[in-house]
Amino acid sequence: MEQTLKVDIPPLRWVGPPDGPAVELLDQTRLPGTETVLACRDVPTLVDAIRRLVVRGAPLLGIAGAFGVALAAYRGDDVVASADALAGARPTAVNLAWGVRRALRACQQAADGGPAAALAAAEAIAAAEAAASAAMATHGLGLIPPAARILTHCNTGALAAGGQGTALAVVVAAHRAGRLAKLWVDETRPLLQGARLTSYEACRAGLPYAVLADSAAATLMASGQVDLVILGADRIAADGSVANKVGTYSLAVLARHHNVSFVVVAPLSTVDFGTPDGAGIVVEHRPAAEITSYAGVPVATAGSDAWNPAFDVTPPGLITALVTERGVACPVNAGTLRALKTGDGARLPSCDVLSDTSMER
Amino acid sequence: MEQTLKVDIPPLRWVGPPDGPAVELLDQTRLPGTETVLACRDVPTLVDAIRRLVVRGAPLLGIAGAFGVALAAYRGDDVVASADALAGARPTAVNLAWGVRRALRACQQAADGGPAAALAAAEAIAAAEAAASAAMATHGLGLIPPAARILTHCNTGALAAGGQGTALAVVVAAHRAGRLAKLWVDETRPLLQGARLTSYEACRAGLPYAVLADSAAATLMASGQVDLVILGADRIAADGSVANKVGTYSLAVLARHHNVSFVVVAPLSTVDFGTPDGAGIVVEHRPAAEITSYAGVPVATAGSDAWNPAFDVTPPGLITALVTERGVACPVNAGTLRALKTGDGARLPSCDVLSDTSMER
Repeated sequence: MEQTLKVDIPPLRWVGPPDGPAVELLDQTRLPGTETVLACRDVPTLVDAIRRLVVRGAPLLGIAGAFGVALAAYRGDDVVASADALAGARPTAVNLAWGVRRALRACQQAADGGPAAALAAAEAIAAAEAAASAAMATHGLGLIPPAARILTHCNTGALAAGGQGTALAVVVAAHRAGRLAKLWVDETRPLLQGARLTSYEACRAGLPYAVLADSAAATLMASGQVDLVILGADRIAADGSVANKVGTYSLAVLARHHNVSFVVVAPLSTVDFGTPDGAGIVVEHRPAAEITSYAGVPVATAGSDAWNPAFDVTPPGLITALVTERGVACPVNAGTLRALKTGDGARLPSCDVLSDTSMER
Repeated sequence: MEQTLKVDIPPLRWVGPPDGPAVELLDQTRLPGTETVLACRDVPTLVDAIRRLVVRGAPLLGIAGAFGVALAAYRGDDVVASADALAGARPTAVNLAWGVRRALRACQQAADGGPAAALAAAEAIAAAEAAASAAMATHGLGLIPPAARILTHCNTGALAAGGQGTALAVVVAAHRAGRLAKLWVDETRPLLQGARLTSYEACRAGLPYAVLADSAAATLMASGQVDLVILGADRIAADGSVANKVGTYSLAVLARHHNVSFVVVAPLSTVDFGTPDGAGIVVEHRPAAEITSYAGVPVATAGSDAWNPAFDVTPPGLITALVTERGVACPVNAGTLRALKTGDGARLPSCDVLSDTSMER
């Protein structure tokens, strides 16, 4: 099922018959050292891959979930049961269940059992996410001052989302526009998505970057070397509360203390208007071994307990701006999010003050 | 030079002639998995061990430095050159240079070249640190509310200091007094002293504890599960600025945001009255490989740069109280520190408010 390649490969690729049906995934658990493709030829394999974080990142999970429904339909499996299994593989990212539902609906509305319709829905989601990524990059670039020193957390590039990603797409756009002085990459414990995946993408994109321990971000901010924090979201409640990789809320509090702008970049598909606020977001707790061991080697004393939430929730009051494909919400609240959703984004107040504040430092 | 033992061994032990002279160190880089003693039979070996963190922790480094001078004197080495090498092995901890100077002075004042005098000075420092540890535990216990949930960072037990340590001595005293509901142990990247060493000591002391990623501390505080942060110090300036393991300042800002008490526990030997404020503290930056690899295995993309300060500096305004062997400074400032130093600690204002605040939550 696995093969190792020496060239860049996409994070997700659909393979139709006769070689498929299959969903091919770049195994992100083995990056940056090894570029390996895992071919998921049935839904249980894909569900397991999602659980093991072979594929991750909220928008990319939405795409993977939709292709998973197409996979079930092409195989002639029970699509409803398959969709349930896919949607439940990880609880926090709203995109996963959203992508699954959209492909399932397309499937159920088709006369032929729906393989082609499910596939078309999945491809449409992937195309829409790629277009959203480009739009977010454009909107986000407007918030970046010259010679910006940007701190990011976790991974938000092509390995996490459609197209060029979310927050990292903005950073890459800033670099291309000559405005990026430095990208600071939080290593992002426990699974080190920053050290492993963002360093991989930053290196390939030629960005000036350095990795740091998550706990060093505070003293980095205090030293005046951070102009903005820019990161993604796994799920956003209707009031603008942002669930994202654990450590995000920590950075939001630290950014506020140091008067550093805190910008979230996410497509509107990440906003769950059915969840009113942060209290309604289920946060996944992951196994203790992610903390107490590393790469299979024990770190903590045998038998140590661990507290290991995968995400935290940042209240909207700590978020300077939310960049979406339809524009920028600033301030972030139920009203500005709703305005973006209903297409009134053009009438939102401008965020020019952000660049001014950052440039004053 | 190495042997593996199956029983508890002290973090540092002097071995006199005829088996010595030697300074035996429990190799902390190999804990908790392996208990190995490294016998340092000359000063360069000891300097290397200090640099590699075989022995660490500010008070224990002071003891190690003093025994290092005794080692040089017993060997008939140039004690001044040896003292310089020892004092310069790590730049941030004031105790190291302080312990070295004190043993060197004793040595130089003796008629016989000073082996016995240097050894007596080193043993006096170790005894004084053990007594200070017991006194800090007593003073600190007065700040602990019933059923306390305490968060700590790095390692501050017997592996870091004389006797039972600094902050961890207070935690152990709280446990013995029936007041410890939970000890939250920050894993403490990059070298994982919390996950490796504090878990080792907490397990042996029978404390109820759990390890967490450093970046999860903020959401843990937000969830109302932390009553106090208690940790140590590597160096304290005359104004009360605290240099300690990177991540300490981060926790201080987070504790302030969440109205959680932030308590530093350190002997007065850690206070450097010759350094007026935090700006005067030299912060050691350590190799990028501590961030970009783990246990020799690359984590980040090859060639990634890293920003790796070993310490950060917390301003006194963020510190609720400083517990020393002579009493508690609260608030922490140049006046209260000076009062403790000159023995006027008994006249400092009481810190009862701390327990009240913690207990209200």
